[in-house]
Amino acid sequence: MGKDLILEKIDQAVKILNEKEIDMWMTFVRETGNIKDPMIDMIVGTNATWQSAFIITKNGDTHAIIGSLELENMKMVGTYKNIHPYLKSIKEKFLDVINQYKPNKIAINYSRNSSLADGMTYGLYLELLDHFNGTDYASKLISSEEIVAALRGRKSQTEISLIKEAIKETLKIFDEVTKYLKPGITEKLVAHYVQDIVAKRGYQLAWDKDYCPSVFSGPNTAGAHAGPTDRVIEPGHVINMDFGIKYNGYCSDLQRTWYVLRPGETKAPDEVQKGFDVIKESITRSANEMKPGKKGWEIDEVARNYIQINGYDEFPHGLGHQVGRVCHDGGCLMGPKWERYNNLPYLEIEEGNVFTIEPRLTIENYGIATIEEMVVVTKDGIEWLSERQNDIYLIKP
Amino acid sequence: MGKDLILEKIDQAVKILNEKEIDMWMTFVRETGNIKDPMIDMIVGTNATWQSAFIITKNGDTHAIIGSLELENMKMVGTYKNIHPYLKSIKEKFLDVINQYKPNKIAINYSRNSSLADGMTYGLYLELLDHFNGTDYASKLISSEEIVAALRGRKSQTEISLIKEAIKETLKIFDEVTKYLKPGITEKLVAHYVQDIVAKRGYQLAWDKDYCPSVFSGPNTAGAHAGPTDRVIEPGHVINMDFGIKYNGYCSDLQRTWYVLRPGETKAPDEVQKGFDVIKESITRSANEMKPGKKGWEIDEVARNYIQINGYDEFPHGLGHQVGRVCHDGGCLMGPKWERYNNLPYLEIEEGNVFTIEPRLTIENYGIATIEEMVVVTKDGIEWLSERQNDIYLIKP
Repeated sequence: MGKDLILEKIDQAVKILNEKEIDMWMTFVRETGNIKDPMIDMIVGTNATWQSAFIITKNGDTHAIIGSLELENMKMVGTYKNIHPYLKSIKEKFLDVINQYKPNKIAINYSRNSSLADGMTYGLYLELLDHFNGTDYASKLISSEEIVAALRGRKSQTEISLIKEAIKETLKIFDEVTKYLKPGITEKLVAHYVQDIVAKRGYQLAWDKDYCPSVFSGPNTAGAHAGPTDRVIEPGHVINMDFGIKYNGYCSDLQRTWYVLRPGETKAPDEVQKGFDVIKESITRSANEMKPGKKGWEIDEVARNYIQINGYDEFPHGLGHQVGRVCHDGGCLMGPKWERYNNLPYLEIEEGNVFTIEPRLTIENYGIATIEEMVVVTKDGIEWLSERQNDIYLIKP
Repeated sequence: MGKDLILEKIDQAVKILNEKEIDMWMTFVRETGNIKDPMIDMIVGTNATWQSAFIITKNGDTHAIIGSLELENMKMVGTYKNIHPYLKSIKEKFLDVINQYKPNKIAINYSRNSSLADGMTYGLYLELLDHFNGTDYASKLISSEEIVAALRGRKSQTEISLIKEAIKETLKIFDEVTKYLKPGITEKLVAHYVQDIVAKRGYQLAWDKDYCPSVFSGPNTAGAHAGPTDRVIEPGHVINMDFGIKYNGYCSDLQRTWYVLRPGETKAPDEVQKGFDVIKESITRSANEMKPGKKGWEIDEVARNYIQINGYDEFPHGLGHQVGRVCHDGGCLMGPKWERYNNLPYLEIEEGNVFTIEPRLTIENYGIATIEEMVVVTKDGIEWLSERQNDIYLIKP
């Protein structure tokens, strides 16, 4: 992430601190080469080895308190106005900076709800409490989750352009896959074909290479978040693929569905067509309900109910997540009120949020139908970021 | 990391649990695609999206409790014998597994001292405590830091072979740099030359690309953990470079020192030669003191004192860290008793530990002399893993 984009996000963070009346946001980390707080790339732009604090205040000041060996590097990175190097212990300089502001609310990088706001490890949290001994700052700590959700969720025009680029490149690869698919090749071969293209074009995969892409062919396949297998594509299979890239720091995440024609067939069987149509329509209906102020679970429910009313099982995951620098980004999730999603389905959709919409259903004896589109939330609705899949792609035997 | 090496490390973990009389080791994580516990690659081998627990018990059982969508993937990865998928909340299956063992000591992934054992974020820790409501397991929790330090620190023969390979490839690149260096080129150009080789040969950098390699030429340079600059190499400069690669999952970390001859010179000036010799001798003396049972700070002190006795300032960092799958690996650190190092300098060196030895001193008006070698601790001493730099490398103008 370039310095300009980081400074843009820091400016945006200052506005959010004012909006939410939070005096100070502190990201406290160490050894980010071993375990990296998910916000570091967005608001710092380099690693920190020893205990380090990156502070943004409501009045727009920025302070980096870092190990002295990293002073020159931090200067070169150039994202923080005030740099305070220390040799033996962070405590003194750290308290000096905080004391300047007498903050009533200090947001720190922990959250029960959102992994993206939960970058401070528990051992490091205990160290922080020790530094605060003899002060009352421990009682002023709040979670940074609202800041992080807003900052990651409200995309700038620059960010939306970058995501559009990633989507465009991804859809090109889907088109190439459509030409490549044929009976007799394995799911793994398809995945290797895709990963080769990604490597050649210098993109990164949007998630774990074990299941990016996921490729499922035919009935009784493994399901989401599983890797491709040695299963061979056959006539009569519904195939789907879940795939995304990271390009210039921003991700895409899309799914498409194919049907492999059997001898004599010129179109998909009725039950396959129906499954596809139900998925497509559930996406349209959910998207029609999306606008700022709606809660995540309200949108999830639209697709979930429509699919069940049409006689299919509900999908075992959320309808859509936000996308950005990471594939599962932002705060609000369009998901059901299941404990595993914490409070994320209860949060509100905001303008500038980029979401996937990705329902799923099983067509018995054929396979899994999924379409995953991407949208950005506008003032009063959504704009499609991906060109929609309107028809099931047919593979000739 | 291949499945075989993960199973080897899990076996080793079981032995360590027995040695340390700990009933159960649980690594509790979520969204490792966003923030990855540093142990996941070593003892699991794939990402986990929803709250997930990876449990290893003293009697050798292994349990993965994971979101249901990741069941097939976990089966394919094949590193855990028992897999328990859940749909809505982890709590029930999670407690079922723990209840089977009635553990008195449960080591979890947090540590004040070691970032490698501190993979559980604070928000996730609060979630864990909630799951334990109504049980007395919260009172049985201990830090996994001793397990992690032993497991990462005690390298198997396979691991040492992999590290040796990484060192061999790295030293080849240093030789190529010796031929490439000349007056008139910038530090940045040298760094790009090195990074190009790394990319072409398919290696990864051992740490952040901003300062891997670090290249410092001449007096008043930036110091460790800073990136290369536009400073131009000139006759009379002492140059040093800090560089390592990751190759087949294991790291190298080495430093070498050069001197750029001035017109008429055929060897380095006496003060440069002296600085180099003091560094070299401080490495020899520290290495001679290393053996199992010594504490980290005792070894650091040998080099630190020797350098100061010879009239130089002490170096502003530890003498040597462990190396493995990450560049700063293991527990025990050969460093001074500074607060920023927590308890790591107080830990004992063990057989199978791989350490760097990397003192540093400034030669006034010339630059910085550093040599960084790598050693493995044996039953009663050390074995050199890197071929030592015995003479300062001379660059002809």
